[in-house]
Amino acid sequence: MAGKVVLHYFNGRGKMESIRWLLTVAEVEFDEVYLSTREQYEKLLSDGDLMFQQVPMVEIDGMKLVQTKAILHYIAEKYNLHGKDLKDRVMINMYSEGVIDLMEMIMILPFSADPKPKLDNIQSKAKERYLPVFEKALSGPIYLVGGKLSCADVQLLECTLMLEEKFPGILADFPNVKSFQGRMTRIPAISRFLQPGSKRKSQPDETYTKTIMEVFKIKIPFP
Amino acid sequence: MAGKVVLHYFNGRGKMESIRWLLTVAEVEFDEVYLSTREQYEKLLSDGDLMFQQVPMVEIDGMKLVQTKAILHYIAEKYNLHGKDLKDRVMINMYSEGVIDLMEMIMILPFSADPKPKLDNIQSKAKERYLPVFEKALSGPIYLVGGKLSCADVQLLECTLMLEEKFPGILADFPNVKSFQGRMTRIPAISRFLQPGSKRKSQPDETYTKTIMEVFKIKIPFP
Repeated sequence: MAGKVVLHYFNGRGKMESIRWLLTVAEVEFDEVYLSTREQYEKLLSDGDLMFQQVPMVEIDGMKLVQTKAILHYIAEKYNLHGKDLKDRVMINMYSEGVIDLMEMIMILPFSADPKPKLDNIQSKAKERYLPVFEKALSGPIYLVGGKLSCADVQLLECTLMLEEKFPGILADFPNVKSFQGRMTRIPAISRFLQPGSKRKSQPDETYTKTIMEVFKIKIPFP
Repeated sequence: MAGKVVLHYFNGRGKMESIRWLLTVAEVEFDEVYLSTREQYEKLLSDGDLMFQQVPMVEIDGMKLVQTKAILHYIAEKYNLHGKDLKDRVMINMYSEGVIDLMEMIMILPFSADPKPKLDNIQSKAKERYLPVFEKALSGPIYLVGGKLSCADVQLLECTLMLEEKFPGILADFPNVKSFQGRMTRIPAISRFLQPGSKRKSQPDETYTKTIMEVFKIKIPFP
């Protein structure tokens, strides 16, 4: 039944990167099949492997899962990264949804005709809307919820690293978040994931953007 | 601890409507506080009631929950509308995420400068990407997952009704989905919710759009 976990996505971050992060922290090994041509995509479609004609798709436990958040919830629940009870879980989900909203704003930047105002907006949203919430939540506790590592912590770490790539020093006013980031990066699986040569992907480049456009036959810039 | 569930949102569908639907099916009574002025919103902000400065916000079980999907998951899990195990749950979440993607496309129409091409796109996505999935899933089973009513069924029903408002007859090619819709509307709580005078909201009108613009100080049309 089991077999190895296989990720089907582009050779880049996009919506799959949070799944790579979560599998890494759960210490689940995975293989990747990179989608690079329209033909590959059409083969997946004609095989009925993509429920809504979209990737990410993850082969796991004999299933072909789609929809990023459904996949993240499955992994989080299976590997005990989703809280001990209903109340923990709703807090984890609230934090996760916020972090993912912020990461998605960064994720779509390469498809923007005019990224500068969008970057400014992301920076101010990060500083005024999102980081203060996490700074407060981490004033004392080691992890965001229930004194235990959860998927929300993993996503927050991923997000802080993405933010620093775009806005070096952005965490200067958020010392609790910065300390949290330091603690998280010392977790062995995460420390290995942050080394060169790991399955972590780089920031999107032109090849990544071009591949997505070709595979999905879309025109950029998006509005 | 408990007290009545209170929803904080605009007097309209938007992101809250799926929450109203799910509470209705769970047979949970709720009150609503309608956000109609900037001052009300600023009061919620200054009271620290909106984690990410956004609504929906739902007071339930002594908490002030935000983030639509976190709220939906909480209600679904609490009221046994979220599957019996991990595998059921991931299927439910996959279906839900797809349905919500489609509903969100409809939801943002009132904020569009040029809705016609967007409507056409929604219609073709509904017919080619989404409805075929549900038509197949419902070829035999009464409910989408595990032979039991789940939040995915509730959201699919909500979505089919939204689609028919925009595209009468769209379900003609999807008889299983149409039968499902008929069965679902005969559930007593749903039947009552579909009667005039219930807490179900109408399609967005100008007042709704204008209120949102004023409360959030945003300019439309969105790009």
